Amino acid sequence: MLCRVEDKFKEECGVFGFFNRDSYKTSKITYYGLQALQHRGQESAGIAVSNGEDIVSYKQMGLVTEIFNEEILKRLQGHISVGHVRYSTTGSSFVTNAQPLSVRFKSGYLALAHNGNLINADELRSELEDKGNIFQTTTDSEVILHLISKYHSLGLISAIKETMKLIKGSYALVLMTKDKLIGIRDPNGIRPLSLGLLGNSYCLASETCAFDTIGAEFIRDVEPGEILVIDEKGLTSERFPEGRSALCIFEFIYFARPDSNLNGINVYIARKALGRRLAEEHPADADLVIPVPDSGNAAAMGYAERSGIPFAEGLVKNKYVGRTFIEPNQKDREIGVRLKLNVIKDIVRGKRIVIVDDSIVRGTTSKRIIDALRSAGAKEVHVRVSSPPVKFPCYFGIDTPTKKELVGSTKTVKFIRDMIGADSLGYLSIEGMLNCFDGKCKGFCTACFSGDYPMEVPAEGKKYLFEKR
Amino acid sequence: MLCRVEDKFKEECGVFGFFNRDSYKTSKITYYGLQALQHRGQESAGIAVSNGEDIVSYKQMGLVTEIFNEEILKRLQGHISVGHVRYSTTGSSFVTNAQPLSVRFKSGYLALAHNGNLINADELRSELEDKGNIFQTTTDSEVILHLISKYHSLGLISAIKETMKLIKGSYALVLMTKDKLIGIRDPNGIRPLSLGLLGNSYCLASETCAFDTIGAEFIRDVEPGEILVIDEKGLTSERFPEGRSALCIFEFIYFARPDSNLNGINVYIARKALGRRLAEEHPADADLVIPVPDSGNAAAMGYAERSGIPFAEGLVKNKYVGRTFIEPNQKDREIGVRLKLNVIKDIVRGKRIVIVDDSIVRGTTSKRIIDALRSAGAKEVHVRVSSPPVKFPCYFGIDTPTKKELVGSTKTVKFIRDMIGADSLGYLSIEGMLNCFDGKCKGFCTACFSGDYPMEVPAEGKKYLFEKR
Amino acid sequence: MLCRVEDKFKEECGVFGFFNRDSYKTSKITYYGLQALQHRGQESAGIAVSNGEDIVSYKQMGLVTEIFNEEILKRLQGHISVGHVRYSTTGSSFVTNAQPLSVRFKSGYLALAHNGNLINADELRSELEDKGNIFQTTTDSEVILHLISKYHSLGLISAIKETMKLIKGSYALVLMTKDKLIGIRDPNGIRPLSLGLLGNSYCLASETCAFDTIGAEFIRDVEPGEILVIDEKGLTSERFPEGRSALCIFEFIYFARPDSNLNGINVYIARKALGRRLAEEHPADADLVIPVPDSGNAAAMGYAERSGIPFAEGLVKNKYVGRTFIEPNQKDREIGVRLKLNVIKDIVRGKRIVIVDDSIVRGTTSKRIIDALRSAGAKEVHVRVSSPPVKFPCYFGIDTPTKKELVGSTKTVKFIRDMIGADSLGYLSIEGMLNCFDGKCKGFCTACFSGDYPMEVPAEGKKYLFEKR
Amino acid sequence: MLCRVEDKFKEECGVFGFFNRDSYKTSKITYYGLQALQHRGQESAGIAVSNGEDIVSYKQMGLVTEIFNEEILKRLQGHISVGHVRYSTTGSSFVTNAQPLSVRFKSGYLALAHNGNLINADELRSELEDKGNIFQTTTDSEVILHLISKYHSLGLISAIKETMKLIKGSYALVLMTKDKLIGIRDPNGIRPLSLGLLGNSYCLASETCAFDTIGAEFIRDVEPGEILVIDEKGLTSERFPEGRSALCIFEFIYFARPDSNLNGINVYIARKALGRRLAEEHPADADLVIPVPDSGNAAAMGYAERSGIPFAEGLVKNKYVGRTFIEPNQKDREIGVRLKLNVIKDIVRGKRIVIVDDSIVRGTTSKRIIDALRSAGAKEVHVRVSSPPVKFPCYFGIDTPTKKELVGSTKTVKFIRDMIGADSLGYLSIEGMLNCFDGKCKGFCTACFSGDYPMEVPAEGKKYLFEKR
Repeated sequence: MLCRVEDKFKEECGVFGFFNRDSYKTSKITYYGLQALQHRGQESAGIAVSNGEDIVSYKQMGLVTEIFNEEILKRLQGHISVGHVRYSTTGSSFVTNAQPLSVRFKSGYLALAHNGNLINADELRSELEDKGNIFQTTTDSEVILHLISKYHSLGLISAIKETMKLIKGSYALVLMTKDKLIGIRDPNGIRPLSLGLLGNSYCLASETCAFDTIGAEFIRDVEPGEILVIDEKGLTSERFPEGRSALCIFEFIYFARPDSNLNGINVYIARKALGRRLAEEHPADADLVIPVPDSGNAAAMGYAERSGIPFAEGLVKNKYVGRTFIEPNQKDREIGVRLKLNVIKDIVRGKRIVIVDDSIVRGTTSKRIIDALRSAGAKEVHVRVSSPPVKFPCYFGIDTPTKKELVGSTKTVKFIRDMIGADSLGYLSIEGMLNCFDGKCKGFCTACFSGDYPMEVPAEGKKYLFEKR
Repeated sequence: MLCRVEDKFKEECGVFGFFNRDSYKTSKITYYGLQALQHRGQESAGIAVSNGEDIVSYKQMGLVTEIFNEEILKRLQGHISVGHVRYSTTGSSFVTNAQPLSVRFKSGYLALAHNGNLINADELRSELEDKGNIFQTTTDSEVILHLISKYHSLGLISAIKETMKLIKGSYALVLMTKDKLIGIRDPNGIRPLSLGLLGNSYCLASETCAFDTIGAEFIRDVEPGEILVIDEKGLTSERFPEGRSALCIFEFIYFARPDSNLNGINVYIARKALGRRLAEEHPADADLVIPVPDSGNAAAMGYAERSGIPFAEGLVKNKYVGRTFIEPNQKDREIGVRLKLNVIKDIVRGKRIVIVDDSIVRGTTSKRIIDALRSAGAKEVHVRVSSPPVKFPCYFGIDTPTKKELVGSTKTVKFIRDMIGADSLGYLSIEGMLNCFDGKCKGFCTACFSGDYPMEVPAEGKKYLFEKR
Repeated sequence: MLCRVEDKFKEECGVFGFFNRDSYKTSKITYYGLQALQHRGQESAGIAVSNGEDIVSYKQMGLVTEIFNEEILKRLQGHISVGHVRYSTTGSSFVTNAQPLSVRFKSGYLALAHNGNLINADELRSELEDKGNIFQTTTDSEVILHLISKYHSLGLISAIKETMKLIKGSYALVLMTKDKLIGIRDPNGIRPLSLGLLGNSYCLASETCAFDTIGAEFIRDVEPGEILVIDEKGLTSERFPEGRSALCIFEFIYFARPDSNLNGINVYIARKALGRRLAEEHPADADLVIPVPDSGNAAAMGYAERSGIPFAEGLVKNKYVGRTFIEPNQKDREIGVRLKLNVIKDIVRGKRIVIVDDSIVRGTTSKRIIDALRSAGAKEVHVRVSSPPVKFPCYFGIDTPTKKELVGSTKTVKFIRDMIGADSLGYLSIEGMLNCFDGKCKGFCTACFSGDYPMEVPAEGKKYLFEKR
Repeated sequence: MLCRVEDKFKEECGVFGFFNRDSYKTSKITYYGLQALQHRGQESAGIAVSNGEDIVSYKQMGLVTEIFNEEILKRLQGHISVGHVRYSTTGSSFVTNAQPLSVRFKSGYLALAHNGNLINADELRSELEDKGNIFQTTTDSEVILHLISKYHSLGLISAIKETMKLIKGSYALVLMTKDKLIGIRDPNGIRPLSLGLLGNSYCLASETCAFDTIGAEFIRDVEPGEILVIDEKGLTSERFPEGRSALCIFEFIYFARPDSNLNGINVYIARKALGRRLAEEHPADADLVIPVPDSGNAAAMGYAERSGIPFAEGLVKNKYVGRTFIEPNQKDREIGVRLKLNVIKDIVRGKRIVIVDDSIVRGTTSKRIIDALRSAGAKEVHVRVSSPPVKFPCYFGIDTPTKKELVGSTKTVKFIRDMIGADSLGYLSIEGMLNCFDGKCKGFCTACFSGDYPMEVPAEGKKYLFEKR
C-alpha cells in the first residue's frame, strides 16, 4: 500500500485561474500557482487552457510536480487558464473525478474548478436527469455546469445567477469560457477566493500565498455572493444577494498556509493568537512547549509566549517523505509515523512537556507521539489543542470522518485524554477561539464545533449519499 | 517526433463487449479481446466494467499492452465489460476523446464503444445544446448517449429505437448498462459486429478473430438494424427497420484481420480472390510477384496463382518497429520506411517484378518501395493494386485524407504511375472487385470508389466540420 | 507474469558499431541499427558513445524503442559508438549484465559488445581473480576486457592478440576505444559480423540488414580471426591465425533476418532451398502447405514449390502482441498462443495439411497449433521441419534448453510425432541441409545436430556453471 | 530544466547497512533507513542485498520513494543489506556512479557504500591500472574494492587493513560480503557512522535518526579507525591505528538531521548553542529574529533566547516543492526561490529583522530573501550566520564550489554585506563555534574555515582532478 498517512481533516480542493494580458506563459504561471496551493489537495491536479478558440486540458492523479512536465505545459497553449488541486474524498483512485471539468455547450466551452460542496446536488442532479441530462462524473461540481448550460440562452451572467439561485452549499469557483475568467463565491463566502494582479494580468486563487509565489500583488478578496468577471477589457463585478458571512474557521486553524491572508487576517498571526488564548484557558505546569510540526508551530509559539514556558522543537519532521510503502500491519504503521516525525531525546528527557496541536481527529497519531515522548524519557506529557473538539460533520467541503472515528464527537475530553495517554488534555473553547478574531467573529462558520450551520443541512445519514451513489 | 508512419487509410475503432455468466475474469478476457482488435486502432484504448452496482473505467493513449497491467486489470472488477481501441482522427493527443464513454443518467449508468461515424451529429448536437445539454468530448458518439438519456422514460429499448430514428451514418455499438450488454448495428450494417459464446458467456466484437483469441465460438453477425440485448437470462433481439445492406468493402480490402470472417466470408480468401481477378484484368509480363507485406500478401498470392508468375517474398518487414523517433527531414523519413521494409536484393536483382498492394493513398510509400527495388537491381517494376482508385471521401468511419493528398481522386492512373516511378500500374475495377463476392455485391458500400453512398451525405467541405469545432 | 512466450531457441545478442566521419548523428544511427537487429535479443539494449575524450553509456531492460527517447539520444554525444541488444540467458531481470560493458583502464576507456559465448571464461576468470581482479558482472564478456587491460602495455592490438590466444569459444566483438572502433571475430567465425560504409563512415553489424536500414553499403564480412581496426585514417586489418571456418548454421535456419546475407548467401533464399530439399526427403500426400509464421515462411514456400502442393497462409500472426500478461495456468497459456497465432478455419477445413516449421524445441507450441488445426476441421496434419533434430547443446551462444526439455535430444521422431499429435513428422537430414549450401558445407558449425563441435567443449553438466555462479 | 535549486553546500552521501538475524524484511528496513537519510543525498539511491549465496542490487537516479516500489523490494531478497543515498558531485546524470558498488572477486562478492572522499585515489588508481585493473566507474570508492580484492589471499580483515594503510582521506564505509556486514571509519573519523540494534539484528547508519525511524536502539558510534564486523555470531571489532579525531564540524552546522546525535551530542542542541554564541558575538538592535527555514531554525531560536529579541517565523517553506521546472532565466529563478520560501508580510512589515542562517555559499539566495523582506516592508535586515565564513575547499566529501563562487573565500564581510543588501552581517568566529562544544573541540575538522586540514592535502587545483578525468 502506497500511502501518505496523516491523521488530519482533509480539505478537498484548491483553485487557481489566470487571465494573461501580458507575455507570460499561461500554463507555467498556473503550474507555479498550483504548487503554492498543493497543501489543499495532493491526490490529483489539472490545468485547462483556452486560446480563445479551443480548450486543452490535462489532469492526472499525483502531485503537481509529478503530473506536469515541460512538454505537457507546452501543449497547454492559451491566454486563459483554470487550475485545480484535489484531495479525493471518495475511494476512487482513477482520474474521472479530477478537475477542472471541461465541457462544450451551446455558447462554446466551459472549464470549472470548484472548492466546496453542494448540499443539494443530489436533488438538482435528479431533476436534471429527469430531463435526460447525462453526467460524466459523480461530483457535485458537474451539476453547476449543467445548470449554466441550461440557462445559456439568458446570457452567461444571468445563467450563472439562475444557477446560484438553485445551488446550496459552499463554492469558490473559477470558471473559464472562451474569452472570460470568472471568480464566484457562494453567498456565505464559506470557502476563500482572492483576486491578484501580475503585470496587467489578473489571477484568482484560493489563497494569497499563490500570488506571492508567482510575484503577483494581492488586490482584494472576491466577496461572498460576488460574480467577478475578467476579460480583455478588465474587471466587472455582479452581485448575487449576499448571505451571512461564514468563512470556514478551519481555514485559519489548519488548512490555509501560514503565509496566506484570509479576510485580511494573516493565518500565522491568527494561529499564534489561538495559542496565546489556549495558554490562558488551559495553563500547564511544565518545562517545555513543543509543537506537533508543522501545523502546531504557530499555536505552540503563542502558547509559550503567553505561558512563559520555553518553546522547543522536540519533534523533527522528515521533509523528504511523500508517498511511501506501508504494509497494513501494526509494525509498519508505527514506522510510518516515525518516518514522518522523530523525537529529539536529549531535549525531552526528564522534562514535563506540553505538546500543542491544531486538532485531534482519531487520536491515533497523538497516542503514538505521546508514547514516543515517554519512551524518550519525558516525565509528563500535557496535550493542548488550539481549537475546540470537532463534534459535528462538515457539509461544506471538509472530509470529516464518520462520528465513530471522530473522537471529539462521541467521547468526553477525559476519555480522550486517557485514550491517547496524556497527563492532561485541554481544548480551546469556541468563545476563546472567536475572541482571537476581535469582533470579526460573526463572519465565521463554526458549525463543526457548535452545530450552528450557516444554512439548513441534510440529516446526518444523507451526507455522503451523493458522492457514493 | 515519435511516430508510427504508415501511408494507409485509417480505421477509427474496434469494439468489444463481454457478459460474464461463468467464472472468467471479465477484464482479462476484454484485455485479450482488445489485443486481437488492436489493428483497428493504435492510438488509445479503454475498458469499462460494471459489477451491477457501479462502473469502473480506465482508458489511456497507447497500445493495449502498454496501457493495462495486472494491477489495473484487477481494479476493473465486474461481470459486464465494454472495450474499445481507437485511431484518433483528430490531432488531439490528449485522452479526452478516448472510449468507452461512461456516463450516469436517470436510469443508472451507460458505457458506450462506437465504431463508425454519424453524419448528422452536428445538427443533433446543436439541438441538444439548445436545450442546455453539455458535452465532455468532441466525438459524435457522445450524442448517442445524450439521446438515449433524453428518452430514458420510455424504457431503455424504446429510448434506443428513438435514438436510432434520429442518428444517421454508420455505427456498430457496444452499450453497457448496470445489467445488460447491448450490441447495435446501423440499418445499413456499414461497420461489422459479431456475436460469440464463451462457455455460457456472450461476447460481442468488431471482428471474429477476437472470438478465436479468447477461445469463444462464433454464433452469428449482429444484423443491420438489430438491437441485440444480453442479460442474465440470455439473448433477446429487437429490430429497427433494416435499410439496404452496405458493409464497408474496405474491411475486406484492408482493415479486417485476414483470419476474420465478415458476412460469412473469410477475409483472407476474399483478398486472394481479388488478387486473382486483378491478374485477369491487369496481367503483366514479369518474373516475380512480390507482395507489399503484410496487407498485400493474400492478393499477391492470388495474382501469382492466376498469372502463373512465381510468388516471392522480396520485401521483409521488421516486426519490432512500433513507435520510433523520426525527425521530420527527408533522410530520417527514408530511414523510417527502411526500418519497416527492406528489400532482399538477391531475390529481385535482374528481375522484372510485379508488386501487389491493397491500395495507394498518397503514393509516397509506393515511390520509396519502387526506388528501393530499382536500387536493388530490379529491371522492371509493375504495380498492381487489389482495389479500385479511391476517389471519394468516406463519411462512415474511415479517415480518408483530403482530396489534395488522395492521389486517386484527382490524378489519372498514368500520372500516378509516373509519380511513383512504376513501369506499369493497374487498379482492380469496381465490377471486378464486386464479382469476387459472387452475387453478394448488393451488400456493400463502395462509395469511396464509386461515389454511390448508401444514404444522403453532406457536401464535401462539411465533412470534418464536426470533429474540428 | 508479463511475458513474451515463444517456444524457440534464443540467440543471445546482436552487436553494432559506428565510426562517424561525416555529420551523421552517431547515437541516432546506432539506434536505427539496433532496431534492425532487435530480433537477435529483446531483453535489454544499450549504446555507448565516445567523443574522443570521454564515454557516455545508457542501457536498460526492454526493447530499443522503449529504452531510448530523443532526450537520451541527445545526451549520447560523440563520433564513435557501440550498441548491443541482448536476450538474457540467466533469470536475472536487473540490468547489471546488459551490454555494452564500459570500463576505464590505463590507456583510457573501452566499451565492448559481444555476441557469442566463451567456453573457458570460468578458468580465465578464476586466474584473474587469483591476482585480485574484481568483476562487475557475471558475464563471460567481462573477462575479455580484463585481459586486454592486463596486456595494455604491449599496445592495443598486441593486447587483443594475447587475449585471443587465451579465450576459447565464439565471439563477434565490437570494441570501442577513445579513437578506434574495432571489429573482431573468433578464429572459427562462429558468429557473424559484417562491415558496411555510410558516406565516409564505417559501420559494423551482426547482420547486413542493419546496413540496409541505415542506408549503408555492405563492404564485406569480417573474416574469422580478423581484427579490423577503424579510425580517423581508415581501415587496417590484423589477422589472428584462422581456424576451421564454422559459421553457426542456425543463423540460416532461424536466427538471422531473411533479408540478411551471411557468407555471401541470402538467408531467405537458403531457407527456401532447405524447404525444397525437405520436400524431396519427406514428401506428403496433402492438399495444402502452411507455414508456421513468420520463421517457417520461406521453407514452406520451398516445400510447396518442390512438392507441387499449393501454398496457403492458414495461420495468422498478430503483429501487435509484445509482452502481455499471462497468468501461469493452462487456460491463460492457451490464450497466449492464440493471441499470437490464429487459424483461418475456412482455409484448413476438410483439408490434409502440411505445416512447415524451422525447428521444434519443446513441442508444446507445435501441439497447440496441431490441436487448433484439427479443431478448425483439418483432416490430416503432417509436420515438416526444415532442420534436423537438435540433439546436442550449443556452447557458442545459443540458449538450448536442458536435455530433458529438448525433445529432439532424447525422443525418437515417432515419439515426438505422437506427442504433438501429428499424422506424420519429418525432419530434414544433416546431409540434406548441408547440400543446400553447395559445397560450402565445410564452413558450418552443425554441432547441435551432429555433436561435431569445432573445438573441444566442456562436459555437458558444466555448461552453464559460469553464468550461474 | 528540472531542478532542485538550493544554494547550500552539498553532502555527498548517506550509508546504511542491516544484518537481519530476526524475521524482518531486510530490503524494507533498508528502504526506511535510507528514507531517514535522504537529506544526505537526493540524486541517486541504491540497495544491495545478500542471501548468503548471491547478491541482488538495484540503484537509480531519484529519491528513495521514487526509485523503490513493492515489487522491486520483493526482488531484493536476503538477510544482509547495504544502502546508499548520493548527491552527485559531477554533472553526470546517468546512473553509472551510483552506489552501492557491487563486485565479484576470488572470495565471493562485495558491496560497498561509501561516504567521504579519498584524496589519493588518483595515484592508487593509476598504480592499479598499471597492473591491468579495469574500472567501471569514475568514483574514488571503486579503488577500495580493487585493493581489498588485491589482498584477498591474506583474508578479508587483513585485506581491509592493507587497504586502509594505502588510502588517504575520509571514509565511512558499509561493506557487505556473502556473510558479513562491516562498518569502517577512517582513522580521523571525519564522516560519522553509528551502530544500532533492532531486535537481535545489527544496523549501521550515517546518522542515528535512521535507527529511530526503524525502531532500533543506538548502541555506539563506530570509532575512528575501527573495523566493526557483524556476522551470524555477533560483533567483532578490529582497530586500525587511530589518528587525530576530526569529525567534520559541518555535520553539526548543516548536514546532519537535527534529531541525530553525533559523538554523543545532539545536533539540534548544538545548533541552538551556536545561535546563542552568535548573539553574544554579534548582537543586533532589532525587533524580531527570523530563521531561514529549516536549517536556520535552531540557531535562530538560540539567538533569540540569548538576545532577548522575540523569535518569529516570518519565512514559510513550501513542503511540497521537490524538483520543479525552472527555465534558466532571471524571472523563473526568482519564482524558484519564492516557490520554496515566502515572507509573511504582516509579521515583518515595519520591523527591524535579524535573519539567522547556518551558512552563506554564493549569497544569491540571501540576497533574494533580503529583497523579499524589504519589499514586504521590513525596516532593517540584519544577517547573522551561525558558522564562520567558508574560506577553504573541503577535500573530504563536501562539494564546496570553486573559490570564485564561494563568497566567503575571496570577499570581505563588508563586501558580502553590501552584495546581499543587508544592514549588517555577522559570522560566528571559529573560537566561538568551538567553545559551544565544551572542550570537545580538538575532535573536529574545521579546515574549511581555518585551512587546518587533519592530513596533508593536494594543491588546490588538483582537487577534482580525479572525478573529472
